[in-house]
Parts: sequence; C-alpha cells; structure tokens
Amino acid sequence: MTRRPGRTLRIAGDRLLAAIRDLGAIGATADGGVTRLAFTDEDLRGRKLVHDLMVGAGLQTRIDSAANIIGYRPGQRQDLPVLMLGSHIDTVPNGGALDGAYGVLAAVEVARALNEHGILLSHPLAVVAFNNEEGAFGTRGMWGAHAMVGALDESDLTAADDRGRPVADLLTEMGGDPGRLDQAVWAADEVAAYFELHIEQGPVLESGNVRIGVVEAITGRSTLDVTVRGKASHAGTTPMELRQDALVAAAQVILAVRDLAGRNGPVRVATVGSLSLAPNAWNVVPGIVTMQVDLRDVSESAMRQAAARLRGEILEIAMRTGTAIDVAGQNSVPAVSCDLGLRDVIAAAGESLNLSHLTLPSGAGHDAQVIGRIAPIGMIFVPSRGGISHAPEEHSAGDDLIAGANVLLQSVLGYDERYAN
Amino acid sequence: MTRRPGRTLRIAGDRLLAAIRDLGAIGATADGGVTRLAFTDEDLRGRKLVHDLMVGAGLQTRIDSAANIIGYRPGQRQDLPVLMLGSHIDTVPNGGALDGAYGVLAAVEVARALNEHGILLSHPLAVVAFNNEEGAFGTRGMWGAHAMVGALDESDLTAADDRGRPVADLLTEMGGDPGRLDQAVWAADEVAAYFELHIEQGPVLESGNVRIGVVEAITGRSTLDVTVRGKASHAGTTPMELRQDALVAAAQVILAVRDLAGRNGPVRVATVGSLSLAPNAWNVVPGIVTMQVDLRDVSESAMRQAAARLRGEILEIAMRTGTAIDVAGQNSVPAVSCDLGLRDVIAAAGESLNLSHLTLPSGAGHDAQVIGRIAPIGMIFVPSRGGISHAPEEHSAGDDLIAGANVLLQSVLGYDERYAN
Repeated sequence: MTRRPGRTLRIAGDRLLAAIRDLGAIGATADGGVTRLAFTDEDLRGRKLVHDLMVGAGLQTRIDSAANIIGYRPGQRQDLPVLMLGSHIDTVPNGGALDGAYGVLAAVEVARALNEHGILLSHPLAVVAFNNEEGAFGTRGMWGAHAMVGALDESDLTAADDRGRPVADLLTEMGGDPGRLDQAVWAADEVAAYFELHIEQGPVLESGNVRIGVVEAITGRSTLDVTVRGKASHAGTTPMELRQDALVAAAQVILAVRDLAGRNGPVRVATVGSLSLAPNAWNVVPGIVTMQVDLRDVSESAMRQAAARLRGEILEIAMRTGTAIDVAGQNSVPAVSCDLGLRDVIAAAGESLNLSHLTLPSGAGHDAQVIGRIAPIGMIFVPSRGGISHAPEEHSAGDDLIAGANVLLQSVLGYDERYAN
Repeated sequence: MTRRPGRTLRIAGDRLLAAIRDLGAIGATADGGVTRLAFTDEDLRGRKLVHDLMVGAGLQTRIDSAANIIGYRPGQRQDLPVLMLGSHIDTVPNGGALDGAYGVLAAVEVARALNEHGILLSHPLAVVAFNNEEGAFGTRGMWGAHAMVGALDESDLTAADDRGRPVADLLTEMGGDPGRLDQAVWAADEVAAYFELHIEQGPVLESGNVRIGVVEAITGRSTLDVTVRGKASHAGTTPMELRQDALVAAAQVILAVRDLAGRNGPVRVATVGSLSLAPNAWNVVPGIVTMQVDLRDVSESAMRQAAARLRGEILEIAMRTGTAIDVAGQNSVPAVSCDLGLRDVIAAAGESLNLSHLTLPSGAGHDAQVIGRIAPIGMIFVPSRGGISHAPEEHSAGDDLIAGANVLLQSVLGYDERYAN
C-alpha cells in the first residue's frame, strides 16, 4: 500500500459548525459577540462543553495543574513523542466566537474523525485547550501555555488580578492545582510537534481570495513609549517661530513610524495606536504628547534596525521642533519561526484538498509562540471577514472553517506519515 | 502755551503696584495664582476694592444694570463724548494677578493722577471695570462689554451657568439689574474712543526686548472641527497597504495646519490644540481621530484663504490615506482693527517717554474687541514674562507695569489734545 490511510478522510463539517455555535452561545452578548473570560462561570461552562466533546471523540481527558484541558489518544508507537494540537477557548470582553475556540473544536473534530474511522496514528495525539490565553482581568496572557513550557514562577501564582484576587485561587476554581504547577510542564522531547489552526485575524487571505494561510512565523513585537515635551502656550498669542509645539513634533514622529514599514521600511508593520496630549485644549499649543509605537516583524534584527532608525529620526525632529523627545523601550516579544517541515506538511495538505494557499506571517500572538520554546510549531490560518477579530463582527465563512479543519486533519496524517520513521 | 499741560505728569508707580498686590491677594491661590471668577464672593470683594479706589481717585461711581463698575469724571466740554478706559478684574480658575486687573487699576491710577494735579480734560472720562470678561461657569464671555454695546438679548439672561443658576440671578447678586439691561447700552455717539492697557499674554515684546506694544488689531479666530474616519484594525495583523489609519492621516493634517501660518502661510498662527482618537489602544490601528483647528489673523480674508487651502489639502490627504475627513466650521470671531489715530497717539506717548515700542496684533481676545463695535479702540501692551498668562506664572516687571500706565496717561492727554477741536 503506497497511499497512506485517510487521504480521503474528511471531518464532519456540520458537526464542527454546530460545536462552534454551541460554544459561542456560552457568554453570547446582545450584539453577536462573546464574553467568556478565563476564570469565570462562562469559562467553566465552555470548558465543560469542550471536555464532553473530547470524551465523545474518544479522547482520554484530564485537567492538568495549570487548568489546561488535555485530550489524549494513544499512538501505535508509544515510544514516539506526542503530536500536539490546540488553542484556547477564553475570549476578550465582547470578542468573537472563533478566536481560539475554532482551533480547539477543530482539533477535537480531527480526533473524532480519526476515532470514527478507526485510524490509529503512529504518534500519540494530544488535543489541548490552553487556559487563559487572553490574560483575563489583567493576568499574564498565555498562562496555560507558559505553564506547559515551565515559564511560570511563584510570582505568577501570587500575583493578584485587577480585582485583587490571587491567580492561585482562580486556578483552583478551574480545577488546577497551584501547589503542583511543575506537573504541568512538558519537556522538549515529550512533544514531537504542535499544530494550531486559527482564523487569520487580519485581511490578507480575504483580500487575496486565498483559502488557506501557511504561517511562516509569529511576528515579534517591540513597543516603544515616546514622550514629546514642548511648551504649552497660548494658541492666539504665541507666534509660530516661538512655539515648541509637542503635537507638531508628534505628527512627524507618527509619519516616521509609518515609514518604518511597508515598501521602504525595515519592518512589516509599524503603528502608533495610542496617543494623549496635554493640555488638550483647542486654544493652547500642546505642551506634552505621549504615544506608544508598536513595531512587528518576523526578524528580530529588522525590529532593532527600525528602532535605531526611529531614534535617529526622532533626534532630528526634536532639533527641528525645539522639543525634547524621550524614547523608552517598553517591552518586546521575540519573533517565533514556524518549522519548515511543518509548513511543507500544511502546504501539501492544502494542495491535496485543492485549496489555494499562501505563506504569511502571523501578526497576532498565539499559544503556538510559547509552545515553540519546546517543540517545532506549525500554524494554519483561514480567512477572517474584513480582517476583524476580538469583536462581535469576527466572522469566517463556514466553508472556510470546514476547509481549515480538513487541512488540520490532513496535516496530522501527513506529519504522522512523514515523521514516524 | 504751546506745550499741553501734563506732558511731564507721571502716575504714582508704587501706588499702582500696591493696588495690583492688594487686588491679587483677593482669591490668591497657594501656588501664586489668583482664582477670582466673576459672580463669586472673591469677585465681590475685588469689585469693592476697585470701587473704593475709584472713589479715592475722585471718580463718580456707579454700577450699571449689567454690573459693570463705571467711574466717571466730567470734562471741560460736556458736549464731547466720553473717553473710555477699561478692562476687567475677573480671572480664570488659577489665573494670574495681571490679566485684566492691571488695565483697570492703571486706568484708575491715571484718573487719580489727573485728579491730584488738577488737570481737567476737554473730554469727559470714564473708567470701566467690565463684568465677567472670562465667561465664568460656562457663561458668555465679555458679558459686561456685550451689554454695553447692546449685543445681549433675553436668552443671555435666562441661560443657566454650568451649575444650573440663571445668569440673571448672578447679575442681581453683583448689583446689576437684569430687568433693565437696556439701560447699560451706550450709543456709538456717546463714546469718543476706548483705550485698554493689558499685558501682552504672548512672548513677542519680551523676545524682542521692547517695552511697549501698540496693538494694530485684535486677531479674528476661525475654529474648525476636523474628523478623520479610517478603519480600526489589528496593529499586528493588518498589512500597511491595507490600512486606513486615521492617525497617520491626522498627522498629515496637523502638519498642513502648521504650514498655514508662518513664513509661507496666509495666517498669523494656526494650531491643532486638541485631539482625541479611538480606540486609542497601543495594539489597534486608530479608526477615528477628531481634532480642532484654530486659525487666527488680523485679516478675515486671510483666514478664509487658509481655511480653503486646508480643505483642499485635506481632500488630498483623505485620498492618499483611504480615509474620510470631515471639516466643519465651528465658530469664528471676526478680527477687530485698532484705530490708526489712536495707534499714533499711543506711539507718540511711548516716544515722549523714551520707551521702545512696536506694532503687533493681539492674539488673545479683550473687552476692546466688543467696544470696537461702538467706538474706535486703541490697545497698549506691556511685556509678559515667558509669554505666559492665565496661569500662576503670569508676570510682568514692575517697571514695565509702571511704564505702560504712564503710556496710558500720556495717551489720554495726547488724545484729548488732538481730538478736542
């Protein structure tokens, strides 16, 4: 037999869409969104639903000490490390029904399809619903994934959320065990590979009319706090040549930031998303402007180059405008590359399904970037309508959701065939 | 006698500075500022002080129905219209001790100097402390001056302040008579001319090391509300070429506004002082930016030219950035020119005192611009340290304050000599 089993296998599309609807009903908001923050009753109800679906898919379930939900399926060869699939089911306030949830429910459906057709992989399989990806109530995001790679310490348990409740207590309520957090940790040799299926949360696939995205890397992020100090003065009585207008300087910084990306810039995207000014009165020349600059790229060196170029341009802007401009590095998240082998597996799966695909970076963060510390990762994207996510308008076509789940299924089969030597 | 009487007359400088200190102590704040809003107990105490000083200067005092305080001095020729001097004594919250108060106290001191030296002018003289120039508690500014020129109507009395109190009630508490507001009105032929002495509230005189400013006009103001509508999107996942970034568009508008003034622009000053954006989150491309544009010039046609140019440039910016930008005219105040004859009188007074002087526009508004509707106006400026006003840091040197009052005195004498034919 030269053709591997399951090449014609498909997930049950209607069942997947029904599961998305059922989970989306938990925490549904009046305007079509979903509010199902981690560590809430809605989260508990959602977790119960996912747990029951895992059982229905023939998975052996457990809640680990970090309150990740894990559904396990043995492989033919128990000496092989686990092939892991996953995402999260918690949402931001008034988010959408697909971010995270789609990846978890599709992975469960993949396991169910394998189970129903009696296909036993060489690799053991684990489907994971990671706990608290979104960082509910001001807690650390990707909490469950961080726990799995051993990146948490005592302070992540004793820290209080923005309501004053220690995370350890929240964890206990979700079925976790804060006293045994180390039991949630996976070693690098225990995970063969990790696949995550997700909506794109951006407009690239839709605008290119492409069905499947093969993620090349999860972009890194560098955030800079920029403070422009000019001199507040009377907008009527202060001649232009005697002004130190912080907003005029800030406008030049905003345009310099834009020019760090796109055709001539070193990074993929560069944004000033937040800005405030003082005094902020129509008849006063602004004295102080503060803003945050967000640079993202798949290359750390590109981000450093962009930050350095921006600092140089800001010096010139400060000179020209008679202002003082401080730039402070706020925080940064390194870029995480997807494994080339897994990218090939995903692309091949798409081709086998006659689905157009393109390679693109992920601009948003995902559990995958954390799991990337212990295992090769691969990510599959499906189109997001209007590129919108984290909002009630978040939507992907049913056909695209089903197609993505089939790519995940075929990627699992393809990976297992290729790497179980 | 070819030389007019009083050419060597000077006001009592120490007495003027003492009066400024005394009035500044009423409503003094911990950080050196003054809070003496119109219609408050502090205002009443300040008005009492000014009233008593007027009596001490030999003026016949009365409170008109708009609660302006008027000190009157007969002239040799009662057939001549009144030569009016004035300003206001109310302040903004935590303002300075000089804005307005200086002009009133110097005018009283001028009358006192004339009185003490037995100089009778041909023209009758009136010193006016205008009621509520600053528009306390959200009321209409330059209230007393507007009443004097007949520019108020019933709605200005029935309107409630931002505490819900009708202005009519406030007026009564200050000694006004809201039922007889028409009695406060002066006809154009009753006022020969109006002089107002004021601190510059800007940096021009100080930076040029000039003692006296001869105001050529009070600049007009045109305010535009600009709303940029782009599309909020994820700062990580939205490629630059698919963005409609409202802040990037706004930055270009801010720079276009700046270029409307100064070396190459049609107007004297152009400012974006207030701006807000939504969502205003570091990781979201801004979807909406609203801002206010403030254009000021002594020429109405220049302001119209600037507004038209800005609208054209905004159209191009909207096209380039994929945004929609609305421009709405918010309100405008016409420019008011100072009388050329009064400017000559002031300049000659400065020269007779060996004080350097220059001609400049007033960027701020003053009671004079309202009185300009019924009489020729002249304004005298003295330097403001750092150009600062409406703040505790507001300051002018004692020598400059005394010099300005002497220019006012000599301008009164010069005017009376020149125009009492």
